[in-house]
Amino acid sequence: MADTADIPERNIRLLIEYDGSAYSGWQRQNNQPTIQGSLEKALFKMLGHTPTLQVAGRTDAGVHALAQVANFSVRSKIPTWQFARGLNNFLPGDISVHSSEEVPLSFNARFNSVSKHYRYRVYHGPQPTALDHGRAWWLLNPVDINRLREAAAPLVGQHDFNAFRSAHCDAEHAIREIFSITVSEVPRPPLGHYVDIVFHANAFCRHMCRILAGTIIEAALGKFEVAKVQEALEKKERQYAGVTAPPGGLTLLEVVYPKELTT
Amino acid sequence: MADTADIPERNIRLLIEYDGSAYSGWQRQNNQPTIQGSLEKALFKMLGHTPTLQVAGRTDAGVHALAQVANFSVRSKIPTWQFARGLNNFLPGDISVHSSEEVPLSFNARFNSVSKHYRYRVYHGPQPTALDHGRAWWLLNPVDINRLREAAAPLVGQHDFNAFRSAHCDAEHAIREIFSITVSEVPRPPLGHYVDIVFHANAFCRHMCRILAGTIIEAALGKFEVAKVQEALEKKERQYAGVTAPPGGLTLLEVVYPKELTT
Repeated sequence: MADTADIPERNIRLLIEYDGSAYSGWQRQNNQPTIQGSLEKALFKMLGHTPTLQVAGRTDAGVHALAQVANFSVRSKIPTWQFARGLNNFLPGDISVHSSEEVPLSFNARFNSVSKHYRYRVYHGPQPTALDHGRAWWLLNPVDINRLREAAAPLVGQHDFNAFRSAHCDAEHAIREIFSITVSEVPRPPLGHYVDIVFHANAFCRHMCRILAGTIIEAALGKFEVAKVQEALEKKERQYAGVTAPPGGLTLLEVVYPKELTT
Repeated sequence: MADTADIPERNIRLLIEYDGSAYSGWQRQNNQPTIQGSLEKALFKMLGHTPTLQVAGRTDAGVHALAQVANFSVRSKIPTWQFARGLNNFLPGDISVHSSEEVPLSFNARFNSVSKHYRYRVYHGPQPTALDHGRAWWLLNPVDINRLREAAAPLVGQHDFNAFRSAHCDAEHAIREIFSITVSEVPRPPLGHYVDIVFHANAFCRHMCRILAGTIIEAALGKFEVAKVQEALEKKERQYAGVTAPPGGLTLLEVVYPKELTT
């Protein structure tokens, strides 16, 4: 490793896309393929050492991202824009870096995020779809969109989402604010359609998106009473909420930061 | 194999979707994974023998299909609708059968098709996209949509497309009729956009879609003169057309049959 003490420190923000199918989630693990592990390996190839990556959302195994945000601090002569290009040369095709930009040294992708948008995608049709394999939750039975919206309504706002997080969640509490839950039906040729549920919240607990999605989808299928969504919020225990929807349907769409940190 | 001579013959039409990334194309080959080979293996598991599959479009290695059509003749007690379900149980996740329906014994997926729709997808953006890996042709340089449409215009109609087919094409001649070439730009978050080119023609020669796409995309990039498209049609030799676009951008969207054969 070259002596780089004289080179000024830069904070680099990466915009990252990935198909999570082949990975045990974002977070580095020994002997398991992870997104963080793959990116850090690629950074090592560029730099000769491995900077620590801070990330906006530590996605689960099998969950995808269109625009994950991570940052790292570095002293190097590599031009900022070249990190995206260089990393893509060392990354497998199912991980790609859209851009690399310099941000203030104080920027932290994890702690500065203001809100996040996640999409949960259902495919309703007579049979599964090959091109959405691992990218949508295939449901044979029709999803009642009105019931889905009805079940989603009580979740919007600031609540204690303790019933909607994994027992392994390490956050101190589960008080979060959901700004909106948007439901749309999109035709999916040649047969069937998608039901897309976009969650916009200030933050999410572990498995929260998938438990929210699983609960309101079960309600829309008639397997879970709509009134019990409110009850789960009040009881604050995992057993009162619905199933955890499979990871492949979930995609991190966007992470929002304060304007002064991103321009 | 059970004696099935007393069971009436049925002709079953399958609507098939696949991600062609992992396959050496549709057509069965020894020691190579193919779509036809995978389907025939699955049929063997259901039936104890392998019926011959007729197919609408023998797609190349790496090419995808939303709605490929194939048919086979069978004497079996398995209900028609159950072929789709049963085949999906034996198929890998990147091949799926949307439906199985009985059609007249005279129906032949290959010879009765009236027309086909193929989409060629380009992604234009600063870096490749992980979720479109193997599903779109990544181009860093912007594609001029007006030039693309201008280059496509002379191709519409009935022509001898000899300049636009592979030297290995086994069709007797290359006279085909293109009914339309539709070009659209679709935003692709978080950065860039798709350029989708949909070809609708009565039939296509080998590599024809990819050579058509490659030629007009090169024209749109300023690498091929628009006027030379007409010249290639007139010269009727492969060397006068543009490059063969990579297979991953191509998807068979739809195969059209005469109404009396499909209802």
